Amino acid sequence: MKFSFASRVSKMPPFSVRPDRRAQRRESWISLAEELPAEELFPLAQLGEAAGAVFSAGPLALQYGDVAGSLALRQWLHSRWQKDQKLVVDPADILLTSGSQQTIDLLVRIYVNHGDVVLIESPAPPGCLQVLHLQGAHVIHVECDRDGMRPEELERLIAQHQPKLLFVSPNFGNPTGRAWTLERRKAVLELCRKHELLIAEDDAYGDLHFGSEPVRSFRRRYPSLFQLDRELGGNHVLYIGSFSKTIVPALRIGWAAGDPQLIEVLSAAKQTADWQSSTMNQAILLRLLQSPRFDWDSHITMLNREYDIRLKLMLELLKRPNWRGTEVEVPVGGMFLWAHLPEELDGEQLLERALAKGVSFLPGRRCYADGQGSSYIRLNFTHPGREELLLGMNLISEAIAEMRG
Amino acid sequence: MKFSFASRVSKMPPFSVRPDRRAQRRESWISLAEELPAEELFPLAQLGEAAGAVFSAGPLALQYGDVAGSLALRQWLHSRWQKDQKLVVDPADILLTSGSQQTIDLLVRIYVNHGDVVLIESPAPPGCLQVLHLQGAHVIHVECDRDGMRPEELERLIAQHQPKLLFVSPNFGNPTGRAWTLERRKAVLELCRKHELLIAEDDAYGDLHFGSEPVRSFRRRYPSLFQLDRELGGNHVLYIGSFSKTIVPALRIGWAAGDPQLIEVLSAAKQTADWQSSTMNQAILLRLLQSPRFDWDSHITMLNREYDIRLKLMLELLKRPNWRGTEVEVPVGGMFLWAHLPEELDGEQLLERALAKGVSFLPGRRCYADGQGSSYIRLNFTHPGREELLLGMNLISEAIAEMRG
Repeated sequence: MKFSFASRVSKMPPFSVRPDRRAQRRESWISLAEELPAEELFPLAQLGEAAGAVFSAGPLALQYGDVAGSLALRQWLHSRWQKDQKLVVDPADILLTSGSQQTIDLLVRIYVNHGDVVLIESPAPPGCLQVLHLQGAHVIHVECDRDGMRPEELERLIAQHQPKLLFVSPNFGNPTGRAWTLERRKAVLELCRKHELLIAEDDAYGDLHFGSEPVRSFRRRYPSLFQLDRELGGNHVLYIGSFSKTIVPALRIGWAAGDPQLIEVLSAAKQTADWQSSTMNQAILLRLLQSPRFDWDSHITMLNREYDIRLKLMLELLKRPNWRGTEVEVPVGGMFLWAHLPEELDGEQLLERALAKGVSFLPGRRCYADGQGSSYIRLNFTHPGREELLLGMNLISEAIAEMRG
Repeated sequence: MKFSFASRVSKMPPFSVRPDRRAQRRESWISLAEELPAEELFPLAQLGEAAGAVFSAGPLALQYGDVAGSLALRQWLHSRWQKDQKLVVDPADILLTSGSQQTIDLLVRIYVNHGDVVLIESPAPPGCLQVLHLQGAHVIHVECDRDGMRPEELERLIAQHQPKLLFVSPNFGNPTGRAWTLERRKAVLELCRKHELLIAEDDAYGDLHFGSEPVRSFRRRYPSLFQLDRELGGNHVLYIGSFSKTIVPALRIGWAAGDPQLIEVLSAAKQTADWQSSTMNQAILLRLLQSPRFDWDSHITMLNREYDIRLKLMLELLKRPNWRGTEVEVPVGGMFLWAHLPEELDGEQLLERALAKGVSFLPGRRCYADGQGSSYIRLNFTHPGREELLLGMNLISEAIAEMRG
């Protein structure tokens, strides 16, 4: 038979935003394209111990559980917010999900009708754009600069389009790795409060911050919009968190925090989508977080130190002659370097050449809903090791040299 | 701010189809309402060993993986089908999901437009109805009897409504526990082939079969519509499988198998929804299935023997005086007993009285899209132990006696 797919399928982007899936299967390929943490930095032994303890404790952790997810894990999140940022979030206002991608998908399903306008940072995370396309949203980018979203642009677009939702990542943008200034955070929040515009704040990269200042202290100087809004008694922000970049992706654990009504409807959508996330995985994570052998702060500090080394290496490599004319902005956090190609070379064309050499990256156009970004590329520096980084960057630079003539 | 939810939210059923969620938190409550396997029958020790082996094997199982899921686990499914039923399914035509609920949700998202007619068994699984409501489908029930779906009714409804999709569970219906006769399977398949109507065949309960005949032999006599269609060279059936009822729910592993094009679009939707299911959990399950200490057939035989004992106890209890006039059909498989209340008592009213006594069940109306089923109730016999079953059934029968006056 011939299949007659729903009309929304035609809005779906090509099968994968990750062009190197097939490529990866060939061991000789190097990927600077994906959003992967470094597996050699996973707390593997401690996680193994935590899993052992969960299986020893009896079968209940393997049964179906509550749609909201482990109460104890939600209490851990509550405690950490309270301790680190003096932010009070009732565990009942937290929903555990299978990661930030699922949280975004659930939110868009319950909040956005086909054709509704959704505003988003410029450039934007490809996974979020994918969700918005599938749901038939009318996506409009809000201009950003190094300080964050530009409030006057946001105000103009709110007036013009009456948007339903605004997606932001003040700590730290994917693909840019930018952190917004406090002034921009306050100005954007104020506008959304004034116009009753719901903000979805994706903080999945928020703990990956480079430089000498500890994350906790950085977060106090640059609070999330969620925190700023809560301190004003507001309910305008849905906070989106994840353990995929800080602990391990395969636990598939993220969370949403916000207004109780929003969390209740999100929970109903979550139940419809897959009943609940794994109680087993939540129990393993909780054991890890509560283990005397694991210290959250030290783990994050270790990750950031290592990622900072990889970032610095990538920045050094970009100074080599073949890259001349390439402009980059040093990221403050996250996993990516956002590079503007010399002479406005086309990122998709460069990718084709690079793939032929055995290396991949993300062409910048995938970070826009409207075809912009063709002369940008996104380079991941967290997953490749030193040798891979050296070789991968070298192969891309060769492809650039070829394109130039 | 006041939230302005998407219009589909108004189509969502009340927060939970499982009325006893809150109730369950009080230890004194007994639930005959849910779709839970018996946790005391989980292969806990073997799963613990499998998890230990996975963590010892290095960090890759904790990294992001392929959206389609573990190739080795898909190969295991391929081999089992080939060995048990001489059915050949390419691993590339299988997508691993987080359970049958997610598979159903993904399918409806890619295949059903708002307002499209979807046909479904009568009565139907509540979780499937929940998905169809959220997606705005126009749900129409097809009359069924003890032999399965009635082909003449199906043909009439196809002609009248040009439906997009047909949901069926020939092995074994939720809530009825029926198995369709071979004639009905062939007749329904033939109609769908003739009219190019896509069939979604939910086989999540297919391994839970009672009686002396082994599941494998029963499956050979009563093949899935998927198998019958494949043997005719067709692509009209999407098969929906799950490990939640046979191994443990908290692995959150199910799968879809079908036409490559359908699987490809489902995979894209899966990626949008949550990137992928847990590679870690898939690796643990695979280790279990491949372990010399675990035998699939013996495990299933043990489960079915134990569930059969619980079913027989429930059937015995239904002979007690307070239940007089209650009509039940002995289920051939699955997890539920579908009971017609005496004197057409109302299931929702009975639930209120039962909850006051400390016991819950599923009112039959939740198994229909159109308000039918008010004098039916669905009783789960797999989760409660002997004492709970005795007490729970007794409390419900008391509530019935009270309603009768």
